[in-house]
Amino acid sequence: MREVRVLEIKQSVFADNDRQADLLRQDLKEKGVFLLNLMSSPGAGKTTTLMRTIEALKDTFKIGVMEADIDSDVDAQTISGAGAKVIQLHTGGMCHLDAEMTRQGLAGLQTDDVELAILENVGNLVCPAEFDTGAVKNAMILSVPEGDDKPLKYPLMFTICDVVLINKIDVMPYFDFDLEKCKEYIRMRNPNAKIIPICAKTGEGIEDWSKWLGEEVRSWHMTK
Amino acid sequence: MREVRVLEIKQSVFADNDRQADLLRQDLKEKGVFLLNLMSSPGAGKTTTLMRTIEALKDTFKIGVMEADIDSDVDAQTISGAGAKVIQLHTGGMCHLDAEMTRQGLAGLQTDDVELAILENVGNLVCPAEFDTGAVKNAMILSVPEGDDKPLKYPLMFTICDVVLINKIDVMPYFDFDLEKCKEYIRMRNPNAKIIPICAKTGEGIEDWSKWLGEEVRSWHMTK
Repeated sequence: MREVRVLEIKQSVFADNDRQADLLRQDLKEKGVFLLNLMSSPGAGKTTTLMRTIEALKDTFKIGVMEADIDSDVDAQTISGAGAKVIQLHTGGMCHLDAEMTRQGLAGLQTDDVELAILENVGNLVCPAEFDTGAVKNAMILSVPEGDDKPLKYPLMFTICDVVLINKIDVMPYFDFDLEKCKEYIRMRNPNAKIIPICAKTGEGIEDWSKWLGEEVRSWHMTK
Repeated sequence: MREVRVLEIKQSVFADNDRQADLLRQDLKEKGVFLLNLMSSPGAGKTTTLMRTIEALKDTFKIGVMEADIDSDVDAQTISGAGAKVIQLHTGGMCHLDAEMTRQGLAGLQTDDVELAILENVGNLVCPAEFDTGAVKNAMILSVPEGDDKPLKYPLMFTICDVVLINKIDVMPYFDFDLEKCKEYIRMRNPNAKIIPICAKTGEGIEDWSKWLGEEVRSWHMTK
């Protein structure tokens, strides 16, 4: 078992999270760090997708990963050694990260040499959607076994995401999942969301996803 | 599309939820209503499991179902006509139900003729675990595609549940899911939890589950 750094996150003292998030984004711009906030239900495949993303982009960008979890460090263990620096954040029962908590995580990660920082948020389709973390882009993963009706039931999450990855498409034959209907529901919530079907396990679709992410990182760095 | 009743739940004004939950349990005891709180991640199969549960127990108990959701009434639509009375609760963005919100739901459902009331909580493995709803028993569903490591990552949910249903066991061959390891992780959190593997889609394991639930309801009614 690898040794991973674990940071116990403290609850925020700031009432105005939106303002803190804007300040963090401004600081990150000055430091040249692109922050991606990755969200999903428990078990939708965030960590496996991250492994593939690091594999695809580690020669292009210096990557740092923050693994947020209520408890345990299994995800940071998995990520360590994949080619990115990583820190495990423990939220102490908290169901989401806000901008100030994300700032604590970035300080723990030490981002001086990081061009692309990725926050793996707590597995939860509800609360993380309500708190701007200061990220430049929000991404979410919806996995096929969860069902195609999730955009109807968790509207805010789909509304605030710039990109929706539909994961585990390899098991589509074993579930009642209508991809076109799902895309339609997502567009009802968010007509501008980029939708990319993937299979993190086999690597299918990862090229499209890492191309999208790479372009976002580059265009953001260029407008510095 | 069926017409279902929808109740907009108001935020609670009570600070001491544990006290409100005890009061609700006491009231339910007097009224002869057994309340089950059913929780899981989004898409783990709560509604399908409920359909099977109603089918198995509708001739034994008068059943009432509260479908809690942030938005939409797709679950109540599904349940209506299954042989139980049903009401859709909208939480207005709230990520869980507490005891006072559950009391509002029960009042909306009208439980005079109900012996077994089931609350389908918001799909979320974090926040609902922190709020006692006043239920007599807590049940949760963990589905195979979510992975066997979830008890490590969402400790409180597994700790507070009396029974854990492991759903979608029909797709076990397509996922890296170790049932024995999962049971071991659950027992680490909660040595007394009843663990029942099921497949709500095919009906496998539903007999064990409805037998367990039926006995709990009967023994609770007998100690009235």
